[in-house]
Amino acid sequence: MISVQENDELTRTGAGTLMGDLFRRYWLPALLASEIAEPDCPPVRVKLLAESLVCFRDSKGNIGLIDEFCAHRGVSLWFGRNEECGLRCPYHGWKYDGSGQCVDLPSEGNAGPMRSRMKLKAYPCLELGGVVWAYMGPPELKPEPPGIEWAHVPAERRYVSKRLQESNYLQALEGGIDSSHVSFLHGAELKRDPLFVGSKGNEYNERDRMPEFDVVDFPGGLLIGARRNAEGGRYYWRITPWVLPTHTTIPPRAGHPLGAHVWVPIDDQHCWAWSINYHPNRSLTVSELSAMKSGRGIHVSYMPGTYVPLQNKRNDYMIDRGGQKTGKTFSGVEGIAMQDASLQESMGPIQDRTRENLCPTDRGIVMMRRKLLEAARASRAGGAPPALRADEQRVRSCAIELPREQHFKDHARHGLFAPPDTDPVTV
Amino acid sequence: MISVQENDELTRTGAGTLMGDLFRRYWLPALLASEIAEPDCPPVRVKLLAESLVCFRDSKGNIGLIDEFCAHRGVSLWFGRNEECGLRCPYHGWKYDGSGQCVDLPSEGNAGPMRSRMKLKAYPCLELGGVVWAYMGPPELKPEPPGIEWAHVPAERRYVSKRLQESNYLQALEGGIDSSHVSFLHGAELKRDPLFVGSKGNEYNERDRMPEFDVVDFPGGLLIGARRNAEGGRYYWRITPWVLPTHTTIPPRAGHPLGAHVWVPIDDQHCWAWSINYHPNRSLTVSELSAMKSGRGIHVSYMPGTYVPLQNKRNDYMIDRGGQKTGKTFSGVEGIAMQDASLQESMGPIQDRTRENLCPTDRGIVMMRRKLLEAARASRAGGAPPALRADEQRVRSCAIELPREQHFKDHARHGLFAPPDTDPVTV
Amino acid sequence: MISVQENDELTRTGAGTLMGDLFRRYWLPALLASEIAEPDCPPVRVKLLAESLVCFRDSKGNIGLIDEFCAHRGVSLWFGRNEECGLRCPYHGWKYDGSGQCVDLPSEGNAGPMRSRMKLKAYPCLELGGVVWAYMGPPELKPEPPGIEWAHVPAERRYVSKRLQESNYLQALEGGIDSSHVSFLHGAELKRDPLFVGSKGNEYNERDRMPEFDVVDFPGGLLIGARRNAEGGRYYWRITPWVLPTHTTIPPRAGHPLGAHVWVPIDDQHCWAWSINYHPNRSLTVSELSAMKSGRGIHVSYMPGTYVPLQNKRNDYMIDRGGQKTGKTFSGVEGIAMQDASLQESMGPIQDRTRENLCPTDRGIVMMRRKLLEAARASRAGGAPPALRADEQRVRSCAIELPREQHFKDHARHGLFAPPDTDPVTV
Repeated sequence: MISVQENDELTRTGAGTLMGDLFRRYWLPALLASEIAEPDCPPVRVKLLAESLVCFRDSKGNIGLIDEFCAHRGVSLWFGRNEECGLRCPYHGWKYDGSGQCVDLPSEGNAGPMRSRMKLKAYPCLELGGVVWAYMGPPELKPEPPGIEWAHVPAERRYVSKRLQESNYLQALEGGIDSSHVSFLHGAELKRDPLFVGSKGNEYNERDRMPEFDVVDFPGGLLIGARRNAEGGRYYWRITPWVLPTHTTIPPRAGHPLGAHVWVPIDDQHCWAWSINYHPNRSLTVSELSAMKSGRGIHVSYMPGTYVPLQNKRNDYMIDRGGQKTGKTFSGVEGIAMQDASLQESMGPIQDRTRENLCPTDRGIVMMRRKLLEAARASRAGGAPPALRADEQRVRSCAIELPREQHFKDHARHGLFAPPDTDPVTV
Repeated sequence: MISVQENDELTRTGAGTLMGDLFRRYWLPALLASEIAEPDCPPVRVKLLAESLVCFRDSKGNIGLIDEFCAHRGVSLWFGRNEECGLRCPYHGWKYDGSGQCVDLPSEGNAGPMRSRMKLKAYPCLELGGVVWAYMGPPELKPEPPGIEWAHVPAERRYVSKRLQESNYLQALEGGIDSSHVSFLHGAELKRDPLFVGSKGNEYNERDRMPEFDVVDFPGGLLIGARRNAEGGRYYWRITPWVLPTHTTIPPRAGHPLGAHVWVPIDDQHCWAWSINYHPNRSLTVSELSAMKSGRGIHVSYMPGTYVPLQNKRNDYMIDRGGQKTGKTFSGVEGIAMQDASLQESMGPIQDRTRENLCPTDRGIVMMRRKLLEAARASRAGGAPPALRADEQRVRSCAIELPREQHFKDHARHGLFAPPDTDPVTV
Repeated sequence: MISVQENDELTRTGAGTLMGDLFRRYWLPALLASEIAEPDCPPVRVKLLAESLVCFRDSKGNIGLIDEFCAHRGVSLWFGRNEECGLRCPYHGWKYDGSGQCVDLPSEGNAGPMRSRMKLKAYPCLELGGVVWAYMGPPELKPEPPGIEWAHVPAERRYVSKRLQESNYLQALEGGIDSSHVSFLHGAELKRDPLFVGSKGNEYNERDRMPEFDVVDFPGGLLIGARRNAEGGRYYWRITPWVLPTHTTIPPRAGHPLGAHVWVPIDDQHCWAWSINYHPNRSLTVSELSAMKSGRGIHVSYMPGTYVPLQNKRNDYMIDRGGQKTGKTFSGVEGIAMQDASLQESMGPIQDRTRENLCPTDRGIVMMRRKLLEAARASRAGGAPPALRADEQRVRSCAIELPREQHFKDHARHGLFAPPDTDPVTV
């Protein structure tokens, strides 16, 4: 249970807010690279951290992410013409390059001093792992490119999707580091989703629904370990790394690909839920890709032409009470991703955390919030928050059986900090 | 014409408001019993007096009405599993019984002290007359079960429906006790609706459109008499009892069933309009039930799968200007219920009563408001408002012809306070 | 770039606002005469300057424009019965004539003093040019009927339409007097719209996209001249008169009809865009009318049964990125009217003008705003704003080629202030 003020501090990310300033220290996923697939393709509206922007790929393939609205009379540049290395406003033909600089001002005869004064807000972008990343902070503090593992594997080993979540980012992130709910909400899915089936860990998840949590600091954030009883007097550990600001990786199950998420605030009531599967050491198979594309695993199906899930709050997530009754699903909602999203959205656009009652299994959540606030305050005070460096982001989730006397923080390092191109450590 | 402050006092019913406190002294219709038809059926979202709740029927058939949101992390229990005498949150499996008490806390190993501390707000319910009633006030002040007549007749003598009204409850209630508009708005309906036709009273309603109102106090609220000229130098009285907080009964016409309403605030901009037909002394006929189910009389047709009327403000109530012109209807809107609802909603979500101009025929409305405020203030001062006792609620509307010198308050008592299982007094 | 306060002053038109008071000095288009085609036809909801009204044509053909809500209990008179020279409220039969006076009070026996006290707000109307005009200001200041030319030509020489624009009126008006954007946004349309093709001026528009603006005062408002290079060392002038409060006329192209607009505030976030074509001296042809009715030129196609454009912000104006790429259109949006509307709406419901950067080509806009504010302040101080007199409104746009040394203010008067029934001066 936290105060109204703390909840506000943790959930608001607009310009000038405490958490908004922290998010602006990191590279953030802005859109799928495929949304701006080719040079001079249509521009795309992008709202991030409550700022309205437009993104385009220019004639040379460079990416621009600039203020949505023309400096002249405020027209949306989403209607703009993407041509000859710039985005041209359709009202009077003003043209901006990817740095936001006005490079053509035909209605005014290109009067030099005026044109050079016309410069829109612009944020640097980079393309990595099928995603366009944006950096929205002070230029002099721009960090090196993201080091998160999924963004660096060859394209054929990775599948990336995003979906709109109609809630604040924090309740999504809190779901992402909460290993405890898996035994309940997703229990049935573990037995039938092709991207999860067949792992011994699933049995442990089912049998022991009261994991012990142990949370360990590391330079990128936290390693959140959930311990369940396994066979032979051992423990089954599932370790979910959280990398600031909102990266998580999901412990793999048997030979399946790893999972990962990033939760990126659109505004205070909406976020992008990025969902990634990847295998560090092999291509994804045809059947894996087919399952992912059809919305299995951590992915979803969409309302046509959008990134809004087909199951959404306007249709009560197509809840199937019969399936809930028979145990086909635990909550009646189909699919891992929408099981999470439905419940997280049900908390309201911004969860009222003054009414929550946290428990021992919420230890990861408590420590994550504390670390977010500490990082934000340190950053304001001129310090460097965690996970700015690429090497701090290099961590991988793992699932592992260990003798009872061995703690994961010492004995799972080979799984957590594995070199590239190696198989996941998993059960 | 009342002040802004009075209008606020009369129309706001959230927790802690003057009228909200008064409503919380009474048993209120919460949902149809058929909405939770069987043990362990799906839970139902219920919003009453601006409080978000969830209602369920447990394995033993007992009804729970508890806070919609789980005590743990705020997930909506509407997604819950209704099983083994409790509602289980789908996130981490916490389970609550109908008293709101957490009875299973599997993710935390059922740690005793913690579990017993986890208790959700819960309100007592009872099932009566096909309706689940809730009491949302202080436990020590809980009144005896409702005594209103329609709730006590055998099921085959009663038909109950509800519809969403997109306005504050007060303008609905004011319509309900306004006998004057019947001659105008519903005039054409009296001649063709199978649930109204064939009464001598209809002729009186049509001929004398300027009733004299006389309003008489009684322990349950008010008896609102509207007097019109009848044949033979007599008066035709239609007496509408109002029982606090928002019960009305509609004077019967000839051999037709009695009508009744309850207007229950959902929030300040919406209310449930409950509509009941019943006959104290006989079963409803097949043709009566068929008419009611098809939306005739005081009932409506619905948007499929909802309690939202098919005719609603988004489709301008399917107004038929041709029918208005020819006199098939007076306003162009079909059906008694939607004629009322359309006009009441047209006043705005909360009518601005600082602009109204009340008349002698609005005497019932003026006295009802005064009595509501008096009752609310008395209740706050520690007194008992009217109609808490079941016997105070035992009143029945009637329509009666009386010699001019006989006042209804003395000479209609046999119709108003008739014993059970007797025919209505009607014209 | 203007201050928040100036932007508020310019854009707010509710009762008691600076600009609202100015608009209330003029006759304003309220609805199409065809919306109330016959005596006793259904009444129509009309919202103007943030006031909710209802308009009806009574049994004698007179037009009433009165408060939407009944004086009694606030029911919307849109549900009223238009009969026997008045609009009758469907709740209790109260009836109002076109002056807002209650003329029948049947539920109260027509009690004389009460009835005469019941008087709704009402505004005088007149019918002119296929349009019902309303005057919402102080009765003693009511000006003579509008003198604008399009309203006075015979009906067969005129076509009038209106469409809902989901923005403040000012950004629409600013687009209307901005001749500069035509070369860009509408450039492709000039070559293919049957209502524009074939004018030498189109070539000038295309070749010289950097017009010089010259703005000249006249008693009705401003004459906004845009000068482009023409052949033979001459200038091509397009002169757009702006007549207060929000009339514009569009310079004609070759033998095509003239165009005109009026932008009328519904509320601060919506306005009616009135669009008129007329020829002062001949009937519109069958093919011209057919093009106008099918949404070509400055007209649009509608969502069935509404005045909401078929292309609207909910469907991204049906943007065609392929057509944008090939140059079929400049912005991808089809049609002159929706090209303007899409961009003006994209600025937001009320453009934030504290972020604009105006240029020399925006001179007309700057002077128009200044004149609006001056007129509003003069009016408040008891003076007469421009264009109150019909003769001050008699101006016509023209397009003309002139030798470089001849200024339009002296040498285009025969085109701007031409007598009725004469051909436009055009290129």
